Amino acid sequence: MTSDAESGEVLMLGYMNAEAMAKTIETGEAHYWSRSRRCLWHKGATSGLIQKVVEMRIDDDQDAVWLRVAVEGGASCHVGYRSCFYRLVPVGDAAGGALAFVETSKQFDPKQVYGDAPNPTQL
Amino acid sequence: MTSDAESGEVLMLGYMNAEAMAKTIETGEAHYWSRSRRCLWHKGATSGLIQKVVEMRIDDDQDAVWLRVAVEGGASCHVGYRSCFYRLVPVGDAAGGALAFVETSKQFDPKQVYGDAPNPTQL
Repeated sequence: MTSDAESGEVLMLGYMNAEAMAKTIETGEAHYWSRSRRCLWHKGATSGLIQKVVEMRIDDDQDAVWLRVAVEGGASCHVGYRSCFYRLVPVGDAAGGALAFVETSKQFDPKQVYGDAPNPTQL
Repeated sequence: MTSDAESGEVLMLGYMNAEAMAKTIETGEAHYWSRSRRCLWHKGATSGLIQKVVEMRIDDDQDAVWLRVAVEGGASCHVGYRSCFYRLVPVGDAAGGALAFVETSKQFDPKQVYGDAPNPTQL
């Protein structure tokens, strides 16, 4: 998973294969493996929203990586928000309520950045 | 993924099935599905290190959840550290270097907390 090094906000959860992890370590810029597009994914290559790795950590059984990054342009979610986690799920006493937006405005217009390029993510 | 609501530190990456997610929403305490033990896992049921959900967020395509929690007892990793992500991977100019410990002391003694209970996690 990837969080903003400064604010601590979790930006996205991505998948890395061995190649993506090696590229991330070598370049200091986040690379993932896109399972939907089946290709190595240099985050920001299209949008310019590169994630510079400030710190990379690995967990106890070494099957998960936590990236702390600085994002050029300030957004990581392809729909235009800063974080992919832009909605709250009510819990406990509030359980059953509607999802609430945490981010109220987008950082960029996806149409302008990606044009008509297809995105396999189902919203 | 689960982070400390106060410090922003990522504590662990866990898997939730529908039941675990429902229980988390209903009780306000983190539940996961343990894939190795194949059972619903109420985090802290054995150790007492319950994760109280301060905020739950869901991502754009609704296949990942970010929990911000307060941990009673201050630790979430079964080997005794605060976070499972207690080691740094050197990147960029430092690539190829050895893993470095971020946490230098454990919060609890796993032997004392779990006794001889087997743990399927391969370190």
